[in-house]
Amino acid sequence: MTQHSSIRVAVNGYGVIGKRVADAVRLQADMELVGVCDIASDWRLRPLEEKAIPLYAASDETAGPMRASGLSVAGTLDALLQTADIVVDCTPKRVAATNVERYRARGIKFIVHGGEKHAVTGHSFVAESSFASAIGRQSTRVVSCNTTSIVRTLSVLKRAGLLKRARGTLLRRATDPWESHEGGIMNTLVPEPEIPSHQGPDAQSVDPDLDVVTMAVKVPETLAHLHYWSVQMTRAAEKEEVLGAFGASSRIALIRTTDGLTAINTVKELMADLGRPHDNLYEVALWEDMLRTEGDELFYAYMVDNQAIVIPETIDAIRALTGLASGADSSIALTNASLGIRQRLF
Amino acid sequence: MTQHSSIRVAVNGYGVIGKRVADAVRLQADMELVGVCDIASDWRLRPLEEKAIPLYAASDETAGPMRASGLSVAGTLDALLQTADIVVDCTPKRVAATNVERYRARGIKFIVHGGEKHAVTGHSFVAESSFASAIGRQSTRVVSCNTTSIVRTLSVLKRAGLLKRARGTLLRRATDPWESHEGGIMNTLVPEPEIPSHQGPDAQSVDPDLDVVTMAVKVPETLAHLHYWSVQMTRAAEKEEVLGAFGASSRIALIRTTDGLTAINTVKELMADLGRPHDNLYEVALWEDMLRTEGDELFYAYMVDNQAIVIPETIDAIRALTGLASGADSSIALTNASLGIRQRLF
Repeated sequence: MTQHSSIRVAVNGYGVIGKRVADAVRLQADMELVGVCDIASDWRLRPLEEKAIPLYAASDETAGPMRASGLSVAGTLDALLQTADIVVDCTPKRVAATNVERYRARGIKFIVHGGEKHAVTGHSFVAESSFASAIGRQSTRVVSCNTTSIVRTLSVLKRAGLLKRARGTLLRRATDPWESHEGGIMNTLVPEPEIPSHQGPDAQSVDPDLDVVTMAVKVPETLAHLHYWSVQMTRAAEKEEVLGAFGASSRIALIRTTDGLTAINTVKELMADLGRPHDNLYEVALWEDMLRTEGDELFYAYMVDNQAIVIPETIDAIRALTGLASGADSSIALTNASLGIRQRLF
Repeated sequence: MTQHSSIRVAVNGYGVIGKRVADAVRLQADMELVGVCDIASDWRLRPLEEKAIPLYAASDETAGPMRASGLSVAGTLDALLQTADIVVDCTPKRVAATNVERYRARGIKFIVHGGEKHAVTGHSFVAESSFASAIGRQSTRVVSCNTTSIVRTLSVLKRAGLLKRARGTLLRRATDPWESHEGGIMNTLVPEPEIPSHQGPDAQSVDPDLDVVTMAVKVPETLAHLHYWSVQMTRAAEKEEVLGAFGASSRIALIRTTDGLTAINTVKELMADLGRPHDNLYEVALWEDMLRTEGDELFYAYMVDNQAIVIPETIDAIRALTGLASGADSSIALTNASLGIRQRLF
């Protein structure tokens, strides 16, 4: 890896996550986006030219149709990887696993996302919990949106000495907005057939200490996930103490129904009003006025923007792997400032 | 009250619940439907003539427009009450409370539904739990759909000596199908602002022993509610023992995702295929293959047809108040047989 004034980042896969990662990388003073790679020939890659982001094709086979459709293709993935210090793989679930051998052969650092298994990299990443153990590694896996939210929230309770065990019900959005014309569910509810669902064990891949069980159900909406939690605390605690504990995470935003934020659509609209790209909600949005303690029990609900929550974690993971930051706090501070992440949305 | 060969039942309010109660009463050998009362002039009351069910108007003021629209009106509520031994009030939430004084003044037995407060009758009814204490009373309240399902399921765990405490997340249908053109939510999730939600205390109005806490969220579908439960048992128990306990209730049907019943719409379609009126699911439909025990913890999910689940309870409540049955078992058996209620749907 040649030393540069900034880390050169490639993004492989320009979908829901990839395009947001690319935008976020371009906002970092210590990073340079050298290009993105994809296989599509349709509308999805057209904004790249206006953004002056170099586009690469996954292979010679895909480069042909892409060029024929009018896209400017700078080369193939191999060429892109030659120009980069690190690649963020944002290809669809299970595809990244096949790219990994290529990254390893080149010795390039790489990040995969939550669709891949923990074993693909042997390390799972949430900035506030596992930044230190990622420093200097060749690779890590930024866990899924749901798991990221679980680790963010339960970790603060753990660090405050309050967490005994947590049991959660996850309402999962049916599909992403951009593809909601292609088979999202309508007017029904679809339980995940496995109880517990996979997010609990996945959170334990970041922090094995967390005693967490999840159940999940798919619901007919596209905006975000919604989690409901019943937590057994180590002792009785008042609401104010718990809210104080959540305040220790810069990536949990406390919101109130009394501000009119009574449903997930209103929170998404607020993100648009704040001028965030793609109306991204990077924070876990947790309703402070709904939160309730009863003796040693704690109940609360929060919203997870599945398209956005892993973006800041991915930026921090780049800093951890490449040694751009010496610790979680400095990286998180840079990322938060660049993306406008905050604990109060207004 | 004059003695008749069968109990004469009046239904006040011919909406989602009232029309199902009327249908169910007509299927009981020991009951006679003497008429229904309503205030509407539109399509909703047109099927009554074909069913030969006498229609009464709530008052002289409403009788005029109803007759003008072509409906045959036999008289007003007062006349209907004169012909009945018991009235089942199915008017909208909070309206019944104003009717109650009229019922009391006449000394007629009456049943209200879960939209009213416990104090309106001082007794809350779920057949398997509180039939005995309702016998001979002037009135009772059949609790709401969600509460009925909670009492049915948690009571069997309690009777099996397994229930310590239960924490549930309730996904509530947005609106009923017949009025889903008028403001049901779309593409969002709306948390109930109060944690705990009211269903837990409501279940305790039937059985104060139940240690239950609920959280609720409105989801954009119209078919049914879906509940997710985390239960702390009194001791470790295997899945088979828990399923055996649920088998003690004739109103819990065990279903399987492996039969293709992977979502609430498929269960509703099965009800139609079984020829049930309005595709009614009277049972709590509980997924036996999703149910999971982990030591002394229990996790499961079930579906609640909010339009149908209280119908059998209402029929049983009629028998309890009027002394038509000496105990829960005989009434439940009659009701189940008449409505086709069973523990295995096929």
